[in-house]
Amino acid sequence: MKKLSDVGERAAIRRIFQHLSKGFTTVPIGDDCAAIDISQTDYLLVTTDMISQATHIPKGMTPYQIGWFLVAINLSDIAAKGGTPLGLVLSFGLPRNTSEKFLTDLTRGADACATRYGTTIVGGDTKETSEITLCGTAFGTVKKEEFMPRKGIRPGNIVAVTGTLGKAGAGYLAVKENIPGNALRKPLFEPVPRLKEGLVLAQQHGVTSCMDLSDGLSSSLYQLQEINNVGFEISSEMLPVASEISLVKKKKPHLDVSRLVLHFGGDYELLLTLPPELFEKTKTVLQQWGADLFMIGKVTRKKTILLVEGKKKTILENKGYEHFKKRYF
Amino acid sequence: MKKLSDVGERAAIRRIFQHLSKGFTTVPIGDDCAAIDISQTDYLLVTTDMISQATHIPKGMTPYQIGWFLVAINLSDIAAKGGTPLGLVLSFGLPRNTSEKFLTDLTRGADACATRYGTTIVGGDTKETSEITLCGTAFGTVKKEEFMPRKGIRPGNIVAVTGTLGKAGAGYLAVKENIPGNALRKPLFEPVPRLKEGLVLAQQHGVTSCMDLSDGLSSSLYQLQEINNVGFEISSEMLPVASEISLVKKKKPHLDVSRLVLHFGGDYELLLTLPPELFEKTKTVLQQWGADLFMIGKVTRKKTILLVEGKKKTILENKGYEHFKKRYF
Repeated sequence: MKKLSDVGERAAIRRIFQHLSKGFTTVPIGDDCAAIDISQTDYLLVTTDMISQATHIPKGMTPYQIGWFLVAINLSDIAAKGGTPLGLVLSFGLPRNTSEKFLTDLTRGADACATRYGTTIVGGDTKETSEITLCGTAFGTVKKEEFMPRKGIRPGNIVAVTGTLGKAGAGYLAVKENIPGNALRKPLFEPVPRLKEGLVLAQQHGVTSCMDLSDGLSSSLYQLQEINNVGFEISSEMLPVASEISLVKKKKPHLDVSRLVLHFGGDYELLLTLPPELFEKTKTVLQQWGADLFMIGKVTRKKTILLVEGKKKTILENKGYEHFKKRYF
Repeated sequence: MKKLSDVGERAAIRRIFQHLSKGFTTVPIGDDCAAIDISQTDYLLVTTDMISQATHIPKGMTPYQIGWFLVAINLSDIAAKGGTPLGLVLSFGLPRNTSEKFLTDLTRGADACATRYGTTIVGGDTKETSEITLCGTAFGTVKKEEFMPRKGIRPGNIVAVTGTLGKAGAGYLAVKENIPGNALRKPLFEPVPRLKEGLVLAQQHGVTSCMDLSDGLSSSLYQLQEINNVGFEISSEMLPVASEISLVKKKKPHLDVSRLVLHFGGDYELLLTLPPELFEKTKTVLQQWGADLFMIGKVTRKKTILLVEGKKKTILENKGYEHFKKRYF
C-alpha cells in the first residue's frame, strides 16, 4: 500500500481534492487562499497553515519567534491574493510538560506579528499533543476585481518578485553550520508577510498571477506551470540575491549557496507575473510605498522552465521542499 | 517553573488572553466562535478545533469517522451561536508512513459531514508530523440580532439541552470495556452538530445564552457561571439520559454510569438558557423541525451549581475533561 512518503505532499493534496465535493469557493483548492463570495463586491479569503516541531522549528528559534512565524506565514497567503486581513484563529497543540512561559512568549510573538500588520488574533484552541504542533487560520477580504489568482498567466508576461531571495536559506545554513549572528537568523525566524505589497499590486489591476514563495522559487514556478499553459525563462543575473548569502559565503567559503536562491523555501516574498508595459509603473508605485519589485524573467509559450546564465539555458529543476518526501537540504 | 499540566487547559487559555491585543471581535475570546462585524446585518463566525491521536482518537475509530468528527466538532461551535456555515478549511498533520488510503478515507469522512450539513471544505494544508494531529476551522455567518452569546443569563431562566446526555460516554465505556456494537460507538465517533437546532433557537430571539456540550455538562455549567453572575439548580430527574447508557449498564451492571451523564464530554448537544415563558413555544417549534428541547433545571441568583435529587440538593462538582490535567475517566 502506498505511503505518503512515497508520493509526497502535493500528490497527497491532489488525492484530497479528488474526494471533496465541489463547493462555493471561486478558486480551485491549492491556491494560497480559498475565496468565498460573501457580498456583491468582496470575497472572504481563508487560509490555514500548520507547523510542527520536527519539520518547521529550527534550533535556536525562540517561542516568541515561533508565534510570529505562525502568524506571518498565514498572513503571507492573504497578501498573495491582494487581501486585507480581518483576523486569525490559532490552535496550539502542546505537550503536557510545556512551561507557562513558553505559552506566554508564543502568544506574545503571535500577537506582535498580528498587531504589526494591522490585525488581531480573535480566538483559538489549546490541546495536548506529544510534540509542538501549531495551526493558524487567517481570514480577510479582497475586492473581487482585485483578487490575484494563480491562474491567468500570458506568454510575454514579466516574472517578478517583491524582495531578495535566499535570506531564509542563509538563515538555515547559519543554524546548521553554527555561524553566529541573530541578523542572519531573523529572516528565517521572523518572516515579513508582504501585505502592503499585495495590496498595492492588487490595486494596479494588471497582475496576471500571484503566489507567495513559501516553497521556494523552483517549486513555485513548477506549481504555476502546472495550472497555466506556459513556461518560464528565469535570468540568473537578474535574481535579487539576498545580502545574507554573501555573509554566509564569507564565513564558509566552501559552501554552495547558489541553490539557496533557487530552491530554498521560507522567503515569503510574492512571486507574480504581469504584462511588460505595467512593470515600471508598478515598481514605481511600490517604491513610493517603501516596497520594491524585481524582474527575474519572462513567461514563454514553450512549457519548460529554463535558467538563463549568459548564453547558456538549462532546465531549472524542481528541487523545492516537499513534505513527506526526502529532503534536499 | 509552572507547566501546563499544573494549571490545565482553561488556565492556559486565560494566560493566552492576557497577552493578546484587543481586537475587532464582538465577543470575548473563550466563546464557541469569534464574531467579526463584516456588514450592517451580519457577523462572520470563526472557530477552530484541533484533535490529536493521543487525546481524541479512541481505539476502533475509522479514518472516515476521524474526518467526520473533525468537521462535526467545528460545525457544532457554529451551531451554538445560531450560525449558518460558509465552509471549512482543514489541516492534516500526518506521519510519513501514513497510507494513501487513510488520507482518502479521512477526506471522505470530512467531506461527508460537511456535505450532510450543507457546507463544503474549501481548502487546507497537509504537513508531516510525528503523530496524527488534525486542525479544522469553520466559518459562517449569523444575523447580528440572532447571535447567541455565552453571557446574558438571567435568574429565573430555564436551563435546557437539545438532546440526550451520556451517549458519548456510553460509547467511550463500550470501547474501554470491549462491549461490542457499532451503535454504541457511533454517537462518540460520529457526533451530530446541532445546526438546525441552533438556527431555530436563534430565530426565536429569546435565548439568553448558548454553548455546545463538548466539555460535558458540569464543566459547561461552570464555564457559564464564571462569566454570568448566576448559579444553577439542575434536576437529576429531568436529565434526558441517553438510551445507550442503559445498554452499557445491561452488559456491565457493576459500572457507575451516572457520572457519564453529568461529566463526560463529547455529546455535542446545545446547552442553553431562556425565559420560562418561551420554553414550551420553543420546544414546539423545534419539534416541528424534527428536533427537541429538554428542560433540565433553572438559573438561580445564588452562585452555586446544585444537583437536585428529590429533596436533596448537593453541589454539582466540576469534573469535566480538561486538557493537560489529570483525567477523570
